[in-house]
Amino acid sequence: MLDDRELVHDTARRARAAAQELRVLTRDQKDAALLAMADALEANSAEIVAENEHDIARARENGTSDALIDRLTLTSDRIASIAQALREVAALPDPVGEVIRGYTLPNGLQVRQIRVPIGVVGMIYEARPNVTVDAAGLCLKSGNAALLRGSSSAMNSNQALATAMRSALVDQGLNPDAVQLVPGDSHESVKHLMTARGLVDVLIPRGGESLIRSVVENSTVPVIETGVGNCHVYVDSHADIDKAVALVVNSKAQRVSVCNAAETLLVHRDIADVFLPRALEALAEAGVTLHADARFAGAARGGPCAVVEATDEDWAAEYYSLDMAASIVESIDEAIDHIRRWSSGHTEAIVSDSQTSIAHFTARIDSAAIMVNASTRFTDGGEFGFGAEIGISTQKLHARGPMGLPELTSTTYIVTGDGHTRG
Amino acid sequence: MLDDRELVHDTARRARAAAQELRVLTRDQKDAALLAMADALEANSAEIVAENEHDIARARENGTSDALIDRLTLTSDRIASIAQALREVAALPDPVGEVIRGYTLPNGLQVRQIRVPIGVVGMIYEARPNVTVDAAGLCLKSGNAALLRGSSSAMNSNQALATAMRSALVDQGLNPDAVQLVPGDSHESVKHLMTARGLVDVLIPRGGESLIRSVVENSTVPVIETGVGNCHVYVDSHADIDKAVALVVNSKAQRVSVCNAAETLLVHRDIADVFLPRALEALAEAGVTLHADARFAGAARGGPCAVVEATDEDWAAEYYSLDMAASIVESIDEAIDHIRRWSSGHTEAIVSDSQTSIAHFTARIDSAAIMVNASTRFTDGGEFGFGAEIGISTQKLHARGPMGLPELTSTTYIVTGDGHTRG
Repeated sequence: MLDDRELVHDTARRARAAAQELRVLTRDQKDAALLAMADALEANSAEIVAENEHDIARARENGTSDALIDRLTLTSDRIASIAQALREVAALPDPVGEVIRGYTLPNGLQVRQIRVPIGVVGMIYEARPNVTVDAAGLCLKSGNAALLRGSSSAMNSNQALATAMRSALVDQGLNPDAVQLVPGDSHESVKHLMTARGLVDVLIPRGGESLIRSVVENSTVPVIETGVGNCHVYVDSHADIDKAVALVVNSKAQRVSVCNAAETLLVHRDIADVFLPRALEALAEAGVTLHADARFAGAARGGPCAVVEATDEDWAAEYYSLDMAASIVESIDEAIDHIRRWSSGHTEAIVSDSQTSIAHFTARIDSAAIMVNASTRFTDGGEFGFGAEIGISTQKLHARGPMGLPELTSTTYIVTGDGHTRG
Repeated sequence: MLDDRELVHDTARRARAAAQELRVLTRDQKDAALLAMADALEANSAEIVAENEHDIARARENGTSDALIDRLTLTSDRIASIAQALREVAALPDPVGEVIRGYTLPNGLQVRQIRVPIGVVGMIYEARPNVTVDAAGLCLKSGNAALLRGSSSAMNSNQALATAMRSALVDQGLNPDAVQLVPGDSHESVKHLMTARGLVDVLIPRGGESLIRSVVENSTVPVIETGVGNCHVYVDSHADIDKAVALVVNSKAQRVSVCNAAETLLVHRDIADVFLPRALEALAEAGVTLHADARFAGAARGGPCAVVEATDEDWAAEYYSLDMAASIVESIDEAIDHIRRWSSGHTEAIVSDSQTSIAHFTARIDSAAIMVNASTRFTDGGEFGFGAEIGISTQKLHARGPMGLPELTSTTYIVTGDGHTRG
């Protein structure tokens, strides 16, 4: 009998074999497979919902919060919309084979740099079972084998989703090992995935900070770091007040549990007098509690919005709640320095009508995305038009920001000569 | 007094501060600095040669080989050519600010993905002091601060080169910490560089396999793996014999000490009878010893070329010498399987006049570069027209193949709205 490590690595070896087949599929073959997977999910909707109910029952027994149970829940409507996402991926262009550079050298050699699949993509993720389908679909379209390690709380759901997708692959004459769940639900199986260097080409963790930290620190397989978001909104002295109020509220409160929600508000001192009364009213209405420095708190005193005193922990915090750190800054450079010190490099917004301020800010802020007069909430593969997204990279190498199909590729140079030798 | 770790990390902190200044320099400023650095190297040529002589004297005392001493040696001519490389980098386009994607979303948001500097680039490299200048120049042009850790054998030379370049930066009114040598010549200083996560954005090791392996395995800073090359030449059944002979000899013997030299020859059985007599004669003339499987050895018996029996170690070997592994394969797929099993993913060549064979091979080989009827020796930043190169990546993420200026950048999305909020 194989031990746990061999079991995981054996799965990875099957994924590698499948990846060699995926590499040479035509777009037609991949799109047909994606549509068949979508159909299979809908055709097996009742079974999937039944398996999901086991996960929900287990979650209830464990005292899981209603919010988390909602994220876990699959209904036939939700399955239809997950299937629809696969059809949308099928409609996207095939990234594989795209020529991203091409030229002829003086000696006549023709150089082309083309996109190729990465190979075997490992996903480690929490809670939401739709990730199982999104990741499988994006990997398949980009010619990669998917090794999926969801959370044990969604085990039955993920198994049912994978079974439906794999049966569709078999019906299409393809290798079902293009989509595999990592066997075992212990933490050990995650460890074995993280040490499968040479078998797995990249690991993408998606979930809370501790999950991501653990994968980044312990994996010998290359990792793409995702999702941790301490996002800032800077209201410049030249901001339009109406837009500034709307953008701050939307960035913070439109949805608090996501990485592109704003956590800190920085206000230029020259606009504080006019901006703050309007902003505090709107933030109070949205239910926001501000964690403010002394100057901001002084200006907000007696106003409609709940304000508590900020500590350094607040500047670093990702609240994932209706809390927001707040500071009045002396200058745009003080705002930039604050962001450089505290940001996680995900998304920062500037609200300003001054081209000078905007150019100054965008040239100096080093984050995955900078929003100019737009909500931080727009940093999202779907909003960017990528179809489904595999995650939002907060690292600087390979991919940065929302990752879609091109980010799931590597490249190869194909150099064509006519017997060219080097002198 | 600072301990070694703090000394290295302090250098990295100064590099970070310099990187913030480099980020916003115009192309004119960077090019002027590169030209000033080139002039300073030439103006200080005598001092640099004198310091280099200390390194050479130490190397001779240590019994270093003539070949290595030649790599280490700087003359005024060599310094002039190193300076010339900086002027060539100045002539290249600035990668920073290049818009690599740009479009307007249905809601009117304007999305632009632009190239930005990575930040602080650490280089760990061996022997040749020209790398000190090449790396500094490429980093500066791409807006990155360079943290350079050369080998202790080139310590005096590297110090003299860095001093000249830093004084040129000061003359240009720039922060000299844009170019720094890592202090200390002990192995400890390399270790401290590898653990400066958060201070150094990427490490690029350049040198022998054990150096690269050690950095990949021990660094908590992201690494770009370079250079290990077990390259193959496959002579297809449809190869032109003249071209095939010339390409095999050039790939193996034009320069043996480099990563893009070929190490294994794979010959299709249908062409062996006509190819081998010509190839063996040419390889013998070039002084090559073949390490052949039984079938190849049988066909080569009594011929002009030295042939010994191959073991599995030969298929894995990077000889860096006039040795070459050799096998006769039954089919193109057997060649592909051999390469999949043994290649380091650097460069493979196919010699063929068959479009079918070429398409089959290029679709299935997963290496940084594939040469079609061209020598493996062409995988090189200079040959590809990149100007100087920072290394050749053999990993799949971020950069693959020769790395020039664009590969020393990350990206940022700049999204411009008019008060856009998410609904």
